[in-house]
Amino acid sequence: MTTAPGTTPVIAAVGTALPGPAVGNAQLENTIGASAQWIEMFIGTRTRHFAVDIETGEQHTTLTDLAERAAFAALSQARTDPRTIDFVVLATASPDELMPATVNQVADRLGLDQIPTYQLQSGCAGAVQALDLACMLLQRPGHRTGLVIGGDVCAKHLLLDRDFTRLPSHELVNYVLFGDGAGAVVVTDDERASGMCLRMVLNRFTGQGRAPGQIIRWFGAASGDGPAPAAEEDYKAIETRVPSLATETLWELADEVDWKADELDFVLPPQLSGRMTGLITEHLGVPHAREISCVADTGNNGNALPFFQLEQLANVIAPDERAVAITVESSKWLKGGFAVEAR
Amino acid sequence: MTTAPGTTPVIAAVGTALPGPAVGNAQLENTIGASAQWIEMFIGTRTRHFAVDIETGEQHTTLTDLAERAAFAALSQARTDPRTIDFVVLATASPDELMPATVNQVADRLGLDQIPTYQLQSGCAGAVQALDLACMLLQRPGHRTGLVIGGDVCAKHLLLDRDFTRLPSHELVNYVLFGDGAGAVVVTDDERASGMCLRMVLNRFTGQGRAPGQIIRWFGAASGDGPAPAAEEDYKAIETRVPSLATETLWELADEVDWKADELDFVLPPQLSGRMTGLITEHLGVPHAREISCVADTGNNGNALPFFQLEQLANVIAPDERAVAITVESSKWLKGGFAVEAR
Repeated sequence: MTTAPGTTPVIAAVGTALPGPAVGNAQLENTIGASAQWIEMFIGTRTRHFAVDIETGEQHTTLTDLAERAAFAALSQARTDPRTIDFVVLATASPDELMPATVNQVADRLGLDQIPTYQLQSGCAGAVQALDLACMLLQRPGHRTGLVIGGDVCAKHLLLDRDFTRLPSHELVNYVLFGDGAGAVVVTDDERASGMCLRMVLNRFTGQGRAPGQIIRWFGAASGDGPAPAAEEDYKAIETRVPSLATETLWELADEVDWKADELDFVLPPQLSGRMTGLITEHLGVPHAREISCVADTGNNGNALPFFQLEQLANVIAPDERAVAITVESSKWLKGGFAVEAR
Repeated sequence: MTTAPGTTPVIAAVGTALPGPAVGNAQLENTIGASAQWIEMFIGTRTRHFAVDIETGEQHTTLTDLAERAAFAALSQARTDPRTIDFVVLATASPDELMPATVNQVADRLGLDQIPTYQLQSGCAGAVQALDLACMLLQRPGHRTGLVIGGDVCAKHLLLDRDFTRLPSHELVNYVLFGDGAGAVVVTDDERASGMCLRMVLNRFTGQGRAPGQIIRWFGAASGDGPAPAAEEDYKAIETRVPSLATETLWELADEVDWKADELDFVLPPQLSGRMTGLITEHLGVPHAREISCVADTGNNGNALPFFQLEQLANVIAPDERAVAITVESSKWLKGGFAVEAR
């Protein structure tokens, strides 16, 4: 895990971006047939946003668009001149293209140039890995301020022109669970900056010998007819394993920064779905910590989620208050998380 | 750029992996019709390796397979117990799946667990970004040894069941230019380790306001018929810009480590194709430095290339001898490179 040998990195501002209107369960029921009542009861997600018009199937927004908007919002809020940005790190599982990496399209849009950029390929753990990398970059001489972005857009896999009545529920659930979005933070090692100190980051692969809990594929020109399904999830494994992985992560982080349970003011639990997040939060055992969640309203937008949580947190956290965020990526059982303390 | 504030990272061993047999130009002529003479004259690549059987179209090797083999070779050569590996970084433009990230499948195969992993999405600059990230990780307490892997597999885009006689030459060239492969290094901050000291790494986005020189797309379940072409290259822009970007990168690196032109023993130029690499190398202006290239034999296998070059270099470099490697990624004009000095 990160310790902060030099100056502690500070999250100076947060920005987020969602595409299009909120799509509620009643509208989804019209489009894909899944009963709004079933969605509310079993998934617990109320709305999500798509980069695609679900009536026409047309994609109106790219990840580059969302990342640019989120980054611009963060830069504006931090009153940071983009020309002072020393690096950009972006995490996603769903880049707009394989090449150029989306981070470089975003850098171009923001008017950045002649700086190092990095793009991490990951599910939701990517947001944490990106913050981790940013901490490392801030240790370098000459690196004072950076942009960290996370987002996902499922448009390429959101097949709408199909007979939903024939779809088994484990495939139907993907349409109600996931959503699109991006978030960004400005991070700095400026000791005078206000914001949230990033005290610790945890990123760890724990999937030795374990089958993937989630697979998202991509196809190419030669992938032909009848390729393997675009997405597979082992919801049983996810329900079984994620709560305990999340709890382990929380306590490991808290121990590392030497915070007792009653010293934790906020918890930012893994954002899988309204219902799953509720189950996980119960399991965490920190009832006095205020829960900061977004997934029931944003939908599960992967790498964007921790940024939506940070945005909410930034609006309510008071100086010296403490928060721990946890991500568990079920693709290959990656533990992730971070501890912040407001200045 | 990296300086090395603590101990200098050492490349302790290199391993590489190529799939299947070498595919020569005569064989390609049979399969896709491009004249062997034309390939030799205009591309300058003699052989390449594919993860696909080009007669049957069947994929026999994955990126995970190649990365595992390359990593195992490097670990064996370094006599490193995999259980002492503190982190894994993998760079690719062509992951086997979007999730799980290939780095985690490879970690699983190698018997690793409970360590941080990172996967960078990039073209050939990814190999350099990965070395860069490894240098940062080695600065952390408790990180002594890591694995850095780079590779690409174009199988998903290698459409073979088509009428090659109708293909324009700018599409035909992709079949002769590219190949598949992976490479890996064991890096350590152990002062007693023999190998090559990594003195400096450069990773920089310079594509502000410039159209991409290369686009590689991916498709999803909803991508439908007649998607955009899988790959587009602006060979004119590449020929125009890459030599000068490469030269700038070389001299910037040399200046940073304070090496004069005549103190450079080896140069590892960007590996685009046999012919392009020749042009670039001429332009670099270091005629007394021995050129280390692989692309005419391996084909352009993206993130694997610098590792194939490092493998050759490791076999010939004598103690205190110096080498500079350069990558220029034309997707969005990324400068990359590193300077090594043998112990």
